[in-house]
Amino acid sequence: MQEFKLIKEYFSNLSKKNVGSLNLNDDVYFDKSKRLVISVDTYIEGVHFINFKKPELVIKKVIRSSLSDLTCKGVIPKYYFISASGNKKTFSKYNLKKISKSLKQEQDKFDINLCGGDTVSSNKTSFTIVVVGFSKKIVFRNKARLNDDIYVTGNLGDSYVGLKILKKEININNKLKKYFVSKYFLPDIHLNLAKKLVNFANSSIDISDGLIADLEKLINNQKLSYKLYLNNIPISKSLSKTLNLKRLKKLSFISKGDDYQVLFTASPDKSRIIIKISQSLGLKISKIGKINTYNQKSQIIDQKGKKIALKHKGYYHRF
Amino acid sequence: MQEFKLIKEYFSNLSKKNVGSLNLNDDVYFDKSKRLVISVDTYIEGVHFINFKKPELVIKKVIRSSLSDLTCKGVIPKYYFISASGNKKTFSKYNLKKISKSLKQEQDKFDINLCGGDTVSSNKTSFTIVVVGFSKKIVFRNKARLNDDIYVTGNLGDSYVGLKILKKEININNKLKKYFVSKYFLPDIHLNLAKKLVNFANSSIDISDGLIADLEKLINNQKLSYKLYLNNIPISKSLSKTLNLKRLKKLSFISKGDDYQVLFTASPDKSRIIIKISQSLGLKISKIGKINTYNQKSQIIDQKGKKIALKHKGYYHRF
Repeated sequence: MQEFKLIKEYFSNLSKKNVGSLNLNDDVYFDKSKRLVISVDTYIEGVHFINFKKPELVIKKVIRSSLSDLTCKGVIPKYYFISASGNKKTFSKYNLKKISKSLKQEQDKFDINLCGGDTVSSNKTSFTIVVVGFSKKIVFRNKARLNDDIYVTGNLGDSYVGLKILKKEININNKLKKYFVSKYFLPDIHLNLAKKLVNFANSSIDISDGLIADLEKLINNQKLSYKLYLNNIPISKSLSKTLNLKRLKKLSFISKGDDYQVLFTASPDKSRIIIKISQSLGLKISKIGKINTYNQKSQIIDQKGKKIALKHKGYYHRF
Repeated sequence: MQEFKLIKEYFSNLSKKNVGSLNLNDDVYFDKSKRLVISVDTYIEGVHFINFKKPELVIKKVIRSSLSDLTCKGVIPKYYFISASGNKKTFSKYNLKKISKSLKQEQDKFDINLCGGDTVSSNKTSFTIVVVGFSKKIVFRNKARLNDDIYVTGNLGDSYVGLKILKKEININNKLKKYFVSKYFLPDIHLNLAKKLVNFANSSIDISDGLIADLEKLINNQKLSYKLYLNNIPISKSLSKTLNLKRLKKLSFISKGDDYQVLFTASPDKSRIIIKISQSLGLKISKIGKINTYNQKSQIIDQKGKKIALKHKGYYHRF
């Protein structure tokens, strides 16, 4: 059963109507009266990270993935909690030292503090991360408007190549290997953009499950469709080089998930402001498509102007 | 390694000094400036509950255990998040229906709402529960004062008998069986006491790991000791009857954990107020001992006035 269907069917009746959680249909909970924003996410060995051989990197990846839930909504994270499950090996002194050091580095980088959590004994390593921030306003899902432009920050696909390298499914020179693996473990978190997002975005989400999967979540309760231009979907020079080298198709790499870039929609009249902000922050922001009416089918247009169908839409959580 | 030592050694440097989390040495985080209180706890199959054969009861037990973290501090819970891990069997339609129904009952009983969470695929069933409440003040650990009386709400030991029945280690008539098993799965949550606690308690904790283990946590950073009177430690008529019937000793049942009663200390001059509140709420509150100087050894006094030593102090989380 898909996570989405499961939540809708059995749990949406448990949330209060007309509050910030949008009937549990968003990545964060927003308590408007308290100006409080909270995200809760669990990351488990074998699902969200391959293994725990690099604790210093895995812990950074899970922290950043959770920070991304707030920053993609225009909220600055303030503190966090970790509930960690694992066995003696997970919590060896060697690993604990590495985890603690990594957390300190992330705290300094993102100006956040650990405020509590839990540790439990389990045969599998997993982390539940709670992130708390404060904001008067947030950018929701499902608030895209007809004719909105669709934007994405940074580059897509690098993280997926990193995953394939770690799984030994792609072989490549050491310099590129290092680049992609680093993109897999250390997604960019755009704190500076978060401060400005509410000024121009109508709706937003972070890309964790894949461009298409997350775009469909972004508009899932709305009678709207999308049109994307493959040419405009941003990839890094390293990915472009790798695709040429390995004769791989761009389409197979841009919607696989774990990108943690911000996907947002904005009215066309915000176009100039967004270009300015992109320049002033030194942050790549690409216009990749448009929000259309429900009568039109959602589509991707390739380099030659032809409609193409994506086979693998991204990662859907199933049980 | 004990959870306590682990947290102190590797993580306490990550929390801000002089904030509500008391360097991670409490069950909740208190953000005084925002009047915000948060608890994060993970419950795992085989550790915190035997198995998931009774999903409708297990889910109530984990929710109440987490509510207890706030109510024992004098804070009214307002909403909660669940991150659930499990396999297809955990999340079968049958189980989901039961979980959803139980959560609805708990929400109505305790006036709380589900605000989000996560679901992940895992071979083991576990739940991380986040509870949020708002309060100007909370009752901390490690604020007991010399000569404080030590109090506990309700009865101790019933839950442990329930656990032993479920593990088939005690055999007993059906009426008693039902009583103890219900006490194991459905701990009392004293919402009404929570509203008053800050008015008279100097320090407090809920008994999850056992009377002695939690009392030692209550004063662990303080140069203090305790003296308990076995006679005054409250047990139910059902437990008293069972002890007689099975020729078991009271001492072996009152410090085993999962009681979720409130253990607190208060100045002797609050004694009359506490009796009044106990009467007005119809809630049993027993004075069970005293806070002493560090020079004296912590001790329990038996029925004949003799000092006794507890062999098993309760449940310590180890890896």
